[in-house]
Amino acid sequence: MGPKLEAFKKRWAEYEILNQTLSLLSWDMETYMPEEGIKSRAEHISYLNEISHGHLTSSKTLSLLEGAESETAGHDYYSDEAGMLRAARRVFEKESRVSEDLVKRLARTASIANSVWIKARRESDFGIFSGVLSEIVGLCSEKADMIGWEGRRYDALLDLHEPCMTSAVIDPLFEDLKSFLVPLAADITGRGRQVNTDFLAQNFSIKSQEEFGFMILAAMGYDLKRGRQDISAHPFTTSFSPYDVRITTRYSEDSLLSALFSTVHECGHALYDQGLPLDKLNTPLCQPVSLGIHESQSRMWENIVGRSRPFWNHFFPEVRRLFPGQLDDVDPDSFYRAVNRVEKGFIRVEADEVTYNLHVFIRYEIEKSLMDGSLSAGDVPDAWNEKYRRYLGINPPDDSAGCLQDIHWAHGAIGYFPTYTLGNILAAQFYGKAIEDAPAIPGETGRGIFSGLLSWLRKNIHGHGSKFTSEELVRRVCGTDMNTGPYRKYLEEKYGEIYEL
Amino acid sequence: MGPKLEAFKKRWAEYEILNQTLSLLSWDMETYMPEEGIKSRAEHISYLNEISHGHLTSSKTLSLLEGAESETAGHDYYSDEAGMLRAARRVFEKESRVSEDLVKRLARTASIANSVWIKARRESDFGIFSGVLSEIVGLCSEKADMIGWEGRRYDALLDLHEPCMTSAVIDPLFEDLKSFLVPLAADITGRGRQVNTDFLAQNFSIKSQEEFGFMILAAMGYDLKRGRQDISAHPFTTSFSPYDVRITTRYSEDSLLSALFSTVHECGHALYDQGLPLDKLNTPLCQPVSLGIHESQSRMWENIVGRSRPFWNHFFPEVRRLFPGQLDDVDPDSFYRAVNRVEKGFIRVEADEVTYNLHVFIRYEIEKSLMDGSLSAGDVPDAWNEKYRRYLGINPPDDSAGCLQDIHWAHGAIGYFPTYTLGNILAAQFYGKAIEDAPAIPGETGRGIFSGLLSWLRKNIHGHGSKFTSEELVRRVCGTDMNTGPYRKYLEEKYGEIYEL
Repeated sequence: MGPKLEAFKKRWAEYEILNQTLSLLSWDMETYMPEEGIKSRAEHISYLNEISHGHLTSSKTLSLLEGAESETAGHDYYSDEAGMLRAARRVFEKESRVSEDLVKRLARTASIANSVWIKARRESDFGIFSGVLSEIVGLCSEKADMIGWEGRRYDALLDLHEPCMTSAVIDPLFEDLKSFLVPLAADITGRGRQVNTDFLAQNFSIKSQEEFGFMILAAMGYDLKRGRQDISAHPFTTSFSPYDVRITTRYSEDSLLSALFSTVHECGHALYDQGLPLDKLNTPLCQPVSLGIHESQSRMWENIVGRSRPFWNHFFPEVRRLFPGQLDDVDPDSFYRAVNRVEKGFIRVEADEVTYNLHVFIRYEIEKSLMDGSLSAGDVPDAWNEKYRRYLGINPPDDSAGCLQDIHWAHGAIGYFPTYTLGNILAAQFYGKAIEDAPAIPGETGRGIFSGLLSWLRKNIHGHGSKFTSEELVRRVCGTDMNTGPYRKYLEEKYGEIYEL
Repeated sequence: MGPKLEAFKKRWAEYEILNQTLSLLSWDMETYMPEEGIKSRAEHISYLNEISHGHLTSSKTLSLLEGAESETAGHDYYSDEAGMLRAARRVFEKESRVSEDLVKRLARTASIANSVWIKARRESDFGIFSGVLSEIVGLCSEKADMIGWEGRRYDALLDLHEPCMTSAVIDPLFEDLKSFLVPLAADITGRGRQVNTDFLAQNFSIKSQEEFGFMILAAMGYDLKRGRQDISAHPFTTSFSPYDVRITTRYSEDSLLSALFSTVHECGHALYDQGLPLDKLNTPLCQPVSLGIHESQSRMWENIVGRSRPFWNHFFPEVRRLFPGQLDDVDPDSFYRAVNRVEKGFIRVEADEVTYNLHVFIRYEIEKSLMDGSLSAGDVPDAWNEKYRRYLGINPPDDSAGCLQDIHWAHGAIGYFPTYTLGNILAAQFYGKAIEDAPAIPGETGRGIFSGLLSWLRKNIHGHGSKFTSEELVRRVCGTDMNTGPYRKYLEEKYGEIYEL
């Protein structure tokens, strides 16, 4: 490694350390910080963000980056050095093109929007939120223009969450999936035949839920020497480095499945972060590829593995043992079907595998329209409700259970939603390839063993860090472009069997 | 407030925020960080320290400080502005005079010394530790010379923990106390009359210990909206700002008193930090005066209040209720006497009020001799054991229960020990003045009410932040210099009564 790359890496490591420190400030805020601590914590986060941003976008960082780029100009496109500098350049451009003034205006507006959204949601009145959403859209447009875009302004925002991805790539994938999922959901829910979930309507001891959660974490291979699980209002995963990746969950006595699947989901995220390349620690490569790839991990574990028949063949007896007398009349297969019940609901975060993506399409389409000006903020409720009627055949009863349910837009996170469905599509592609390479995986799942799958993920996904974009990674791993084939096939077979279609 | 002071305060606030962030990195390390997290955490702390030090000692900070100093040159010595800039100047000088090279050498040596000390202590062999202690003494001498000193080189180190204090002030105080405590300890332990503590040799439910701890915290006035209590290997208090002051404790089934008095002690520290002036947030004034003043708070609550007869008259019935059947034959007075049992022991942290300071004198005298070169590191065990024989009449069985018991020197913290006894002396002076001003305090203690004492402390001690030095504060609050009179009187009366001297 040349001296200029070396000097650049030293500089970059400082940026990573600042961001890891910021992650701790946020983690603590969500878990243990006492109520009034926020009065100082907001300042901590704001100032550390300022330092981190200043450090990255400084002329010193740029000149070290340029030096390293010219020193490694002859390297192979797929070398670590070239991949590292491409990743660094992407981050640098994104952060340095947006003016500090805009960053501050966005932060200020998002902070106001957050409390306005809370009020609007509580009163179920989108009119309260409409004005500030309009401002957010305006600021995001400014931001997109500063970053630069070719096809659509929206793409600049999408790129913040899914580097190098464009709506031109996403649109046909989502259209294809929509044409498949809308009739599938109608078919399942229209037949008047529903799986039984009555036995889930009981109180389940939180202590036993915890015990089961930790059993699953251990089985999945989550390294508790490099992580821990705490309680927070909303489950999340945070990573300070592969040496310290923490997850959270929340327990509710009247819901056995909520903590359980949140644990599997967050553990999927955490396994990715724990598997990032340690020999690239604090370089631009010791990072996840994108939100879509991250979500492909959590959703593969949660849905493809965690809601599979072999999984519950193995684990349901444990559940029965942990909640004695409560599930004696239930067999593994009934439990498997119960955790895969499909229903047309209003709330995205409560949706099943079949309807989930329909919720995403609605948000994605509305976001794009807001950004190209074909829809104004005030018209969001009508557009929202019309799409729910069209895709799901249901009519949201009010704004609170409708277009005010998600916090993303209030935070200025336009371009985030499609990564959820990208994650679903990619999960099926990756899993398909994994069992092609290692056919023992489903059998191992049936014995509560996940080391085969985890090894495959470590080797093919986690270990590369951010060397490839999501499209490059899929091509490299699966030998094909991103496509909906495996995901459609997976859903068709699974739900065809459960609902006897 | 002038524009230059304003500009300086903005700059200083950034320094405070960096230090508060460092406090969170350390707190998390001691409480929740998973085992392997240390591999990244050490880098976090080291880099944030570098930023914090660089920020403080930069030419920009200096020129803003000088600007503010000249702008406020005409202000009264006791004005907030003048006090703030004096405090800032003290911190600035201390940090900027020590070269970065020495800071790094000290950090490196201390890190080595820490593991060497662990090994030496485990093997109870001071010879293993002697070499690195000698290096530490050498580096501390270099540090003292860089900082500068007048009377004794040791004073430069003392000043780091107790600003503006010198050994010339301490020596006569400690000599006076020694001449009183050595015979007092001999007298108490020589009479063959001991208080009964048999009933403490039981197992006490940790759940009930916790409940009692939180009862005490609430009674003392610890604001749990601005704090929390967690578990750690060694109890400590950490403050991110008065909005977020956290304490820790540790529980052991076979020791009722350990968690209990650590809770009262740390709560005493925390009440000080929660009471620092909020209108001076993130200025040099929103800081404790010194370790001695901090310790005066923890020790006043732990010993003068928490080991008093009125305290246990009120709380012992609660203890009896929480541990049903375990203390039925014990009355409040017996419990009071048991928690004040005096014994000649080898271990400082287990010592009672009477012998505690003797342990401190021994370390203080040895530190001074190490720094003036009259004692070499290799001769510490002999000096140590000789002093234990002379002051306490006991002979340490080995180095592990002798001169290897404390970690302070391995950390390079020479000049720290005397602040413990300063805290004891000051606690008695402050408490004496408090009950002179508010004679209802002891009666309130007997009813489990502490608001009178806390109000007095808030007004007279906490609320000033670091505007005064410890000597100035004592003079201002008590109208006298620091002196041992009230402390001697307190010990004499209390232990005279308990041991019928």
